[in-house]
Amino acid sequence: MRHAIELAHRGPSRGVNPQVGCVILDPDGTILAEGWHRGAGTAHAETDALSHLAPGAATGATAVVTLEPCNHTGRTGPCAQALLDAGVSRVVYAVDDPGHHSSGGAERLRQAGVDVVPGVLRSAGETLLGSWLVAARLNRPFVIAKWAQSFDGRAAATDGSSQWVTGPDARADVHARRAAADAIGVGTGTVLADDPALTARTASGSLYPAQPIPVVFGHREVPESAALRTHPRPVVRVTGDDLAADLAGLRERGIRSLFLEGGPTLISRFIALGLVDEYLIYLAPMLLGGERTALTDIGVGSISDARRLAVDGVHTLGDDLLVIAHPKGHA
Amino acid sequence: MRHAIELAHRGPSRGVNPQVGCVILDPDGTILAEGWHRGAGTAHAETDALSHLAPGAATGATAVVTLEPCNHTGRTGPCAQALLDAGVSRVVYAVDDPGHHSSGGAERLRQAGVDVVPGVLRSAGETLLGSWLVAARLNRPFVIAKWAQSFDGRAAATDGSSQWVTGPDARADVHARRAAADAIGVGTGTVLADDPALTARTASGSLYPAQPIPVVFGHREVPESAALRTHPRPVVRVTGDDLAADLAGLRERGIRSLFLEGGPTLISRFIALGLVDEYLIYLAPMLLGGERTALTDIGVGSISDARRLAVDGVHTLGDDLLVIAHPKGHA
Ligand SMILES: NC(=O)c1ccc[n+]([C@@H]2O[C@H](COP(=O)([O-])OP(=O)(O)OC[C@H]3O[C@@H](n4cnc5c(N)ncnc54)[C@H](OP(=O)(O)O)[C@@H]3O)[C@@H](O)[C@H]2O)c1
Ligand SMILES: NC(=O)c1ccc[n+]([C@@H]2O[C@H](COP(=O)([O-])OP(=O)(O)OC[C@H]3O[C@@H](n4cnc5c(N)ncnc54)[C@H](OP(=O)(O)O)[C@@H]3O)[C@@H](O)[C@H]2O)c1
Repeated sequence: MRHAIELAHRGPSRGVNPQVGCVILDPDGTILAEGWHRGAGTAHAETDALSHLAPGAATGATAVVTLEPCNHTGRTGPCAQALLDAGVSRVVYAVDDPGHHSSGGAERLRQAGVDVVPGVLRSAGETLLGSWLVAARLNRPFVIAKWAQSFDGRAAATDGSSQWVTGPDARADVHARRAAADAIGVGTGTVLADDPALTARTASGSLYPAQPIPVVFGHREVPESAALRTHPRPVVRVTGDDLAADLAGLRERGIRSLFLEGGPTLISRFIALGLVDEYLIYLAPMLLGGERTALTDIGVGSISDARRLAVDGVHTLGDDLLVIAHPKGHA
Repeated sequence: MRHAIELAHRGPSRGVNPQVGCVILDPDGTILAEGWHRGAGTAHAETDALSHLAPGAATGATAVVTLEPCNHTGRTGPCAQALLDAGVSRVVYAVDDPGHHSSGGAERLRQAGVDVVPGVLRSAGETLLGSWLVAARLNRPFVIAKWAQSFDGRAAATDGSSQWVTGPDARADVHARRAAADAIGVGTGTVLADDPALTARTASGSLYPAQPIPVVFGHREVPESAALRTHPRPVVRVTGDDLAADLAGLRERGIRSLFLEGGPTLISRFIALGLVDEYLIYLAPMLLGGERTALTDIGVGSISDARRLAVDGVHTLGDDLLVIAHPKGHA
């Protein structure tokens, strides 16, 4: 299984499809073939591995796969059937397929008399799948909410000034994380107030090779002159009227992870609806007071309804702090 | 000097007077006498040390003192004169006397021909004096502002509920710090809303041996039934109309350190006036949103006026975080 996980890593970590690896072993444990998935539209890992074998060569063999073989005819046929056709007699896998259409592969194999062993190195398999698994289970991208605030929770001073709330190390950290996300989201309020470029830039100002897709939530127009319009990737617009539906739509486009950068109104709605999977709170060592809070109403009436978080880490970035947390009770 | 500092520690660390130690050495470096200050109304360290010597025994000796000998006739005579009378020919000290009335001792000694060496182990001497030195330099107690907030800077949920924002470890930490302070301050708003006891209690609920003096800021009456009225020490009332004057008054009563626990209105005024020396921000891992911010207006109009802090440490207390900080630019 460790070898299958290594193979899986050769596939792309972005896009609508997961990283999957497969190893075919003969009854003595000798490796007959290896395969991995190279992204949407290409062969699944199992089919890729089987393609390296002569007909009949896999009879009585064991297939070790990082994800439960699919039971779904998409752009490729169902892998469960392909394994049966090849004569495989044993299938070992790490993580159950969370897909609504694609699951059931293990059951199909079992009914055909194959010895199926699920859950081997499950947590390593889940780590490998990362945001894809969350996205698949929830039918939406993994949502990372990021904001910068003073220690007392303000996004800006009374007059609205907020430039350089956080320092250069924190900003560099944000850009590296932007580059690792499939998409970056903001509300129209932020676009109109700040005219952000929404690109992922290195400290020297050059673009990272990977750029997140900019997604703007809201009805108002993005001005012709907006910096956003020069983004290397075309801007995706969603209304924000039904955030769950918007997110499902983003996932259909292959967006697995959404880096949500604000502003206060939009992030607060995401939090209120329970749509945030990870929190990145950048805390600048200053007090501002006043009305311009980084979060507005998040639908918490009483302390018993508080959105409780589990802290994954507190990091020092120059003079700033970064608290990484996730909703308490989630994995 | 290290020995003098050790002697100083034998004196009381609370009250209006500092901890001071003194060693008298003969020209060979042999210790002739030791002294320390035992608190207001008792002999100063120099006089205490000299009292152990026969008349004339200190002729030509060196006095090593942690604080510049005073030049002020209070309840005891000026120590500078006492050293001159005893025939001391050399005085070594750590910290300059910050007092308005009492300083000038070094100058008086020098004019009388004594060899004066200031600033020996100054920073160790300043650490020893701690809050007394701040209090003496600023003519007010050292002010520690403490509050508990959610990560997003709220003191309570929309309906006002705030019980158990922070957990037991954070509360135990607060009580230990209360016990170390000379006084604990709150506004009438907090007294009327929360009816706090303002005692320092151990985890089992018993009182710490040392209890801070409860100080209530504001005009409104403390109800007859208030828990505060059963505090082991009588409540001190100040109006809060002139906080600087109130603080000077507290210092005159011998209060060197004030642990300010709220609420939002009072703490925000202290911050706005630049009267906070240390910040203790207890951060509970939850988001609340809404209007009940832990700080209100602190007089910051623009980001350039932000109250910038230097972080001394970030600590984990159970699920909570404690950020300790001081105003940037202060020592
Ligand atoms: N500290 C930080 O980290 C940070 C980050 C970003 C921005 N900011 C600051 O925040 C300010 C902008 O604040 P903002 O709150 O107006 O910005 P925002 O949250 O980016 O935009 C709010 C707008 O988003 C649209 N929207 C889309 N879906 C929505 C939904 N489900 N619920 C509500 N609104 C939705 C609405 O616009 P339509 O009317 O167009 O539909 C709404 O007016 C700026 O001053 C900016 O500098 C701070
Ligand atoms: N999260 C926390 O750490 C924390 C801590 C404490 C309290 N709280 C919460 O805070 C709420 C009470 O808030 P609050 O802001 O009303 O309490 P507060 O700050 O304790 O009291 C405000 C009152 O203090 C008096 N005051 C004295 N000097 C003042 C000055 N220089 N400027 C302004 N006011 C001065 C005024 O009362 P007079 O009219 O009597 O003069 C004023 O109304 C309660 O719900 C409590 O639970 C939270």
